[in-house]
Amino acid sequence: MYFQALFIFSLLIISSSQAAVLDFCVGDLSLPDGPGGYACKKPSKVTSDDFVFSGLATPVKLIPLIKAAVTPAFAPQFPGLNGLGISMARLDLAIGGVIPMHTHPGASEVLYVVQGEICAGFISSSDNKVFFKTLKQGDIMVFPQGLLHFQINSGKTSAVAIVSFSSPTPGLQITDFALFANDLPTELVAATTFLDAALIKKLKGVLGGTN
Amino acid sequence: MYFQALFIFSLLIISSSQAAVLDFCVGDLSLPDGPGGYACKKPSKVTSDDFVFSGLATPVKLIPLIKAAVTPAFAPQFPGLNGLGISMARLDLAIGGVIPMHTHPGASEVLYVVQGEICAGFISSSDNKVFFKTLKQGDIMVFPQGLLHFQINSGKTSAVAIVSFSSPTPGLQITDFALFANDLPTELVAATTFLDAALIKKLKGVLGGTN
Amino acid sequence: MYFQALFIFSLLIISSSQAAVLDFCVGDLSLPDGPGGYACKKPSKVTSDDFVFSGLATPVKLIPLIKAAVTPAFAPQFPGLNGLGISMARLDLAIGGVIPMHTHPGASEVLYVVQGEICAGFISSSDNKVFFKTLKQGDIMVFPQGLLHFQINSGKTSAVAIVSFSSPTPGLQITDFALFANDLPTELVAATTFLDAALIKKLKGVLGGTN
Amino acid sequence: MYFQALFIFSLLIISSSQAAVLDFCVGDLSLPDGPGGYACKKPSKVTSDDFVFSGLATPVKLIPLIKAAVTPAFAPQFPGLNGLGISMARLDLAIGGVIPMHTHPGASEVLYVVQGEICAGFISSSDNKVFFKTLKQGDIMVFPQGLLHFQINSGKTSAVAIVSFSSPTPGLQITDFALFANDLPTELVAATTFLDAALIKKLKGVLGGTN
Amino acid sequence: MYFQALFIFSLLIISSSQAAVLDFCVGDLSLPDGPGGYACKKPSKVTSDDFVFSGLATPVKLIPLIKAAVTPAFAPQFPGLNGLGISMARLDLAIGGVIPMHTHPGASEVLYVVQGEICAGFISSSDNKVFFKTLKQGDIMVFPQGLLHFQINSGKTSAVAIVSFSSPTPGLQITDFALFANDLPTELVAATTFLDAALIKKLKGVLGGTN
Amino acid sequence: MYFQALFIFSLLIISSSQAAVLDFCVGDLSLPDGPGGYACKKPSKVTSDDFVFSGLATPVKLIPLIKAAVTPAFAPQFPGLNGLGISMARLDLAIGGVIPMHTHPGASEVLYVVQGEICAGFISSSDNKVFFKTLKQGDIMVFPQGLLHFQINSGKTSAVAIVSFSSPTPGLQITDFALFANDLPTELVAATTFLDAALIKKLKGVLGGTN
Repeated sequence: MYFQALFIFSLLIISSSQAAVLDFCVGDLSLPDGPGGYACKKPSKVTSDDFVFSGLATPVKLIPLIKAAVTPAFAPQFPGLNGLGISMARLDLAIGGVIPMHTHPGASEVLYVVQGEICAGFISSSDNKVFFKTLKQGDIMVFPQGLLHFQINSGKTSAVAIVSFSSPTPGLQITDFALFANDLPTELVAATTFLDAALIKKLKGVLGGTN
Repeated sequence: MYFQALFIFSLLIISSSQAAVLDFCVGDLSLPDGPGGYACKKPSKVTSDDFVFSGLATPVKLIPLIKAAVTPAFAPQFPGLNGLGISMARLDLAIGGVIPMHTHPGASEVLYVVQGEICAGFISSSDNKVFFKTLKQGDIMVFPQGLLHFQINSGKTSAVAIVSFSSPTPGLQITDFALFANDLPTELVAATTFLDAALIKKLKGVLGGTN
Repeated sequence: MYFQALFIFSLLIISSSQAAVLDFCVGDLSLPDGPGGYACKKPSKVTSDDFVFSGLATPVKLIPLIKAAVTPAFAPQFPGLNGLGISMARLDLAIGGVIPMHTHPGASEVLYVVQGEICAGFISSSDNKVFFKTLKQGDIMVFPQGLLHFQINSGKTSAVAIVSFSSPTPGLQITDFALFANDLPTELVAATTFLDAALIKKLKGVLGGTN
Repeated sequence: MYFQALFIFSLLIISSSQAAVLDFCVGDLSLPDGPGGYACKKPSKVTSDDFVFSGLATPVKLIPLIKAAVTPAFAPQFPGLNGLGISMARLDLAIGGVIPMHTHPGASEVLYVVQGEICAGFISSSDNKVFFKTLKQGDIMVFPQGLLHFQINSGKTSAVAIVSFSSPTPGLQITDFALFANDLPTELVAATTFLDAALIKKLKGVLGGTN
Repeated sequence: MYFQALFIFSLLIISSSQAAVLDFCVGDLSLPDGPGGYACKKPSKVTSDDFVFSGLATPVKLIPLIKAAVTPAFAPQFPGLNGLGISMARLDLAIGGVIPMHTHPGASEVLYVVQGEICAGFISSSDNKVFFKTLKQGDIMVFPQGLLHFQINSGKTSAVAIVSFSSPTPGLQITDFALFANDLPTELVAATTFLDAALIKKLKGVLGGTN
Repeated sequence: MYFQALFIFSLLIISSSQAAVLDFCVGDLSLPDGPGGYACKKPSKVTSDDFVFSGLATPVKLIPLIKAAVTPAFAPQFPGLNGLGISMARLDLAIGGVIPMHTHPGASEVLYVVQGEICAGFISSSDNKVFFKTLKQGDIMVFPQGLLHFQINSGKTSAVAIVSFSSPTPGLQITDFALFANDLPTELVAATTFLDAALIKKLKGVLGGTN
């Protein structure tokens, strides 16, 4: 078996010039982004560390109001995902914890129960039918794109889940925060939610909204 | 200029066998559908009428609760749209009418004000920032995919709008209906919305929910 | 109900860094663009006005030759649409007006008749079959991607239509302008259209073509 | 190195049940199709022959009018391409032959000159600018999706080209055939093309159109 | 607050007819599938159980050869994922276990270490550069679409990982199985791998290949 | 027939501002790229030459080891393809030449035999089934995305093929080069390929690998 060194070098030279748009596009958050994601980091500066993220290894501080937390590993936190059509997040739920009704505007989700017991469900748009079930450790559940869904710790221990999304930037819109942690005038919130102004003002107060 | 009839016929014969997957795929609602939409009606049965829909020409009966109505021309109503990445709907808003907070899980939307004045807005998922504006006749506004948004008749006459979507099946999830017109047990609704049980039961009563 | 302000602020900080590739990507026309559209305007500079466009509210001056006009609200005119898979345009047709045979290379189209009566149709590629119909006010019609189609004012009043596309940059190629308003040598136009040189030169003269 | 036969069999059993939607979806033209293409042939009936097509190996009979022919290997002719995002065709051009102005509504195209010399070009939609060039054997040229383009034998021998498309069903709309080989009333053709009725009737006669 | 029962019923009737192509498309494996996935189960037969899968909760029997196992939750095993752009799998690696070099032809992958320590890496196509790293519990790593990659238990305990894919049918091609567990004649394997016939025959023997 | 020059100029002005994201996006390799490809060259600098590539017209020097060569016309070599979903390459195989087992991580492929006889095949991922056949001049064969495949000159003359891909950046991962022309430690290669260290070191020597 015989091989010319010349070949290898010429092959590598051709290949290097292709590297940028081939294989991957680690996001460079300092450059302008586009509809498809961040601009690519120069291939020569990409290392193994760009493809690994440790931010899901430990729980973040829980939010007292919900006794729970969502830790995202989306493209902004983990730029190695940029352009690859996938991302992850970690859910921590203390006893009694809940991830309130929310949507991901740009992705479907699969949840894997790492620990504990979680009651999870989603609401279909066509007939307001609710699909929900209590999940044990190791169970997985899928939540179709854009639909309202929730997760509740229904067990007697804290619960942890890993969720995965069909987009590097799935978005997360928690309905209560969207409705009450904003500066939309109370009368407009009232008109569009059927809730009365007093309740809205109270919820705005709790969640940091104004007007 | 000379032309063989033979050619024309042979060309047509070749073409006919291709017609099914070329150009369009009018939905046949009697066949099983797939992730990409309905199965195609046989090309030989497709006529001009399959590509025209008159259901938006006249207002439907308004829903008293909201003094408004949404008339969809999605693929199920207008199967000629099947597979073509687009659809429409008509909004009618009486004086004081409102299309409550809602999302389209599968599409972005552009609204065109045919008549009247409409205050419309959406809420971003990243920071709960509200983008809203009062639109005059002829104005258009875009609502990015999956985000909570609303339309209110802010004028002194009835208002009509045509909205278009980036999917033949955009979906429509009105938040109040999703939360209260379902059979999800009241305590689960309470846990995932921060609202108290009494209010939820009241809203379930109004909107047709149970449990 | 209890809530820590600290939480809100930390949540917002996390969220802000994500905003760029989440939710929307208002086009910044001063930056280089890519295959998927324009680069995104910085989120901190985006306002409600970016999502509203008033350029379709009033008719533009009609083109005498066709007694009609097309006013686009594509991404270049309305950068808020960038990356959202949708756009709009307004058609104005005086009595006898016509939008000549044309294609949109990158999108399907739905037309809504705002006013008047329009005869519209498209030609399938597989067998040159024409699907056409006279549309009344409020009717909608779909034109599948890339196919030749036309609109004619078939009524006794001026007509207005709103058309929507399945892309923010659908393109518009009016066949006559493409064939005769260019600088392709007359003999090449003749060879590729079956028309004779004298007619081509005449049409080039009318439409501004050369060579 | 040790291996249990049991493992192999169980692995194969798992795999077989997945085969249908994995890897490929050879089209079964006898079943209803959908927006994404034909339904899949049962994997157990798929053989090597499904992935090979010999229909481009020999020239078809040329069309006298254009001294040329297009032989498609699209999904209807070559169902192994179904769902794979690509297809091919063969162009034969005798001396003086021409593929008239046409579009592919659903795909971009790359042309490779197998033999002879071809003058090819396309017309941009934004400003009617023509990009054209004389291609020698071995040259390739790209034609962006949906734009009008043409190929002319500009050499002194017959020419052959292989073209490839970014879709298994790119479509082919030859402008002259679309405009004149149809049954659209002559006055509508006249109104939408700026051509006079006499010429249209003559072209309809040549190309097989009616009305 | 007032509400007509009539409204609710009419809304539900409209909605039901839309359900099939809205929101989700649970795969019906008994029907013919298409390029986009399985045909949809009738919405009226869909229950919460369709969206939950318990097959990843417990380890399957390891494959002795590799002291490891891959348990897929792809669309064929978990039809609720059909059409939703995502799937999951569980990796079990005993001490010394390894998931050999493999690719997923149709998806990118993110791996989450549930337990133990895993050395994982992938090889870029452009310059054969290897990106690899030792991952601790809770770390995640991304593997771009279609590239060769591997996972090795590099710790002193058994390891478990959850992997997620950007497609419901990512495919799994383990290079050694593809090359040696087939019936491709040994001389063709030799010619295309640079390995000698004796070794190929030995590996075919171990892995169940023939010829 | 009457026409106002004013109209033409205003039309062109409108059009020019749209040109950047319409029709095409010739890659500018000097700018940062994104997940969707290169940034676009300014339309005013685009010429016909940007859409033509002559690099496949003549054979490159063959690689002695395989008596063959692959000449790519991917977006990095032919930036006119950028964003258009397609690319090409030329295969040259001397007598006895072989394109070894490889994958294209991001595209399906169609091969056209320009000259000679080629035995080509691919291996399915679901059951390691091999689909292969001897192709004569003019035959075409399709290789589904991401699957291992090969081409061997099985004739008595040199062979040439043109291959086309469903992406402007399909990638090319030759298995042997990926496994042995890298710097992955020999013990990791051994653990993930079932090959012994001595053979791996020998192959690394031949192919330019280290460690």
